[in-house]
Amino acid sequence: MSVLVVGSMALDSVETPYGKVEDALGGSATFFSAAASQFTDVNVVAVVGDDFPHEQIQFLKDRNVNFDGLIEKPGKTFRWGGKYLFDLNQRETLFTHLNVFEDFNPELPDHYKQTPYLFLANIHPELQLKVLHQMERPQLVVMDTMNFWIEGTPEPLREVLKHVDILIINDSEARELSEETNLFTGAKKIQEMGPKTLVIKKGEHGAMMIDNETYFFAPAFPLKNLQDPTGAGDSFAGGFVGYLAKTNYLCQKNLRRAIIYGSTLASFCCEKFSLNRLEEINKDDIEKRYKQFLEMMKVG
Amino acid sequence: MSVLVVGSMALDSVETPYGKVEDALGGSATFFSAAASQFTDVNVVAVVGDDFPHEQIQFLKDRNVNFDGLIEKPGKTFRWGGKYLFDLNQRETLFTHLNVFEDFNPELPDHYKQTPYLFLANIHPELQLKVLHQMERPQLVVMDTMNFWIEGTPEPLREVLKHVDILIINDSEARELSEETNLFTGAKKIQEMGPKTLVIKKGEHGAMMIDNETYFFAPAFPLKNLQDPTGAGDSFAGGFVGYLAKTNYLCQKNLRRAIIYGSTLASFCCEKFSLNRLEEINKDDIEKRYKQFLEMMKVG
Repeated sequence: MSVLVVGSMALDSVETPYGKVEDALGGSATFFSAAASQFTDVNVVAVVGDDFPHEQIQFLKDRNVNFDGLIEKPGKTFRWGGKYLFDLNQRETLFTHLNVFEDFNPELPDHYKQTPYLFLANIHPELQLKVLHQMERPQLVVMDTMNFWIEGTPEPLREVLKHVDILIINDSEARELSEETNLFTGAKKIQEMGPKTLVIKKGEHGAMMIDNETYFFAPAFPLKNLQDPTGAGDSFAGGFVGYLAKTNYLCQKNLRRAIIYGSTLASFCCEKFSLNRLEEINKDDIEKRYKQFLEMMKVG
Repeated sequence: MSVLVVGSMALDSVETPYGKVEDALGGSATFFSAAASQFTDVNVVAVVGDDFPHEQIQFLKDRNVNFDGLIEKPGKTFRWGGKYLFDLNQRETLFTHLNVFEDFNPELPDHYKQTPYLFLANIHPELQLKVLHQMERPQLVVMDTMNFWIEGTPEPLREVLKHVDILIINDSEARELSEETNLFTGAKKIQEMGPKTLVIKKGEHGAMMIDNETYFFAPAFPLKNLQDPTGAGDSFAGGFVGYLAKTNYLCQKNLRRAIIYGSTLASFCCEKFSLNRLEEINKDDIEKRYKQFLEMMKVG
């Protein structure tokens, strides 16, 4: 099955203790596509400015990522600048220039509307709703969001959540959305808002999935050569949704495998700046690391 | 096999968002014994004052915890006071009154000296060394420490580490001891100091074990009714070392099982204040939760 993603395509300026890049390829839809396209076809809905370096996404086109839904507008591409502190767990946003993204009005090409798997990346919930309304009953709706929307636009966010099967957020966002400090009590409240499955990302501490009343925990990969965590969350989502779409099987066992594929892609993402590592890796690299994950979790 | 623990026995005054206790039973040796005694016999080396409520440790004596190495001195028992912030991940120490613990000079009864499994709880490394020197070649030496000794007494700490097989510390302590922000790079440096196996506790994020070059990750139990995390680390150590001593088998597979038993005991510890929950539980409770852990980690 194929996947549709709506999100940002951006140029990121990032500094970490291991180096820095300027105007490097970034954005939630870009990272997601790079990861998901290892498993299945991806349809992208996004907007860029007339300064966008299209040649840099050629590798995605070569991997069956379809950009018919990518609109180019006069003006500048969305730019984000950030700096990571010494342990890479905390980051500081230096600037956010929405540019052409400010008036983003996602319109789906007709041949996108029946895409069975939908990923709503972390954008304004009104835009997520606009995409949802143009789709013809997707089989699975997965969504990401962030504290900015939880605080700033709670009503449309609640509306989107009603249509969502799987919500992917981080632990502090889950606490904020549920207004509960206990994640597990909070999860139940979020499930009542719509998504019966929650995937809670915890950065270096891995990810957990709460599916109805069932818990699953997966570690993050022990990386000695972590360079830049930007895009790790979207790469996780890409691996997770991409694997689900490829296998088209939503039982608990397969959801767990998808979490490990998500964690696998997130770990590769962090090994180099921008999409550099995601561009390099192939299916063998992914399978090898997937198996390493299983080894690290096995109790004999 | 039996286990010897040297550590503190204390009276704790603790406040969490769920309640508060004053002068409640606490201390590293106490929590450790309560957990380890679910698996095997425990010999305790500790000191208390003449105000110590011995009747409160009767349940430990009933479980084959031997207190021949517990010295009672004139004066007050070690007292600690702490307050946990709203999410229970951070705590503030309100007071530490060492009292009789200040002049603690551990002396092992002769029948303790051949105990095959040794746990050096988090006390001054000079005291840990004194115990080590009195032992007759223990089969396994496991040690805990904290930032206070890492910063304050680095030399005796390094000396103890040379004799240690397994070091149990938390993630920030591992970073501090190794002077590395990357845990995995840091782990290698710590292994070079002595302990070939590191167990790194991460609170609500579980625990990881690095055994030579092999990584293992275990989650923390998803507790909705967390009341007081005091003693969780020592309960973890008690479950971990207790299970190893009971099975007397140090292969990777068994170490992993021991980590899950440690996590199991730590999770029970947090469900009530002081040792109240550790006192209640029985082997069936432990086995049931152990199996729940395995279910939450299984990838089909």
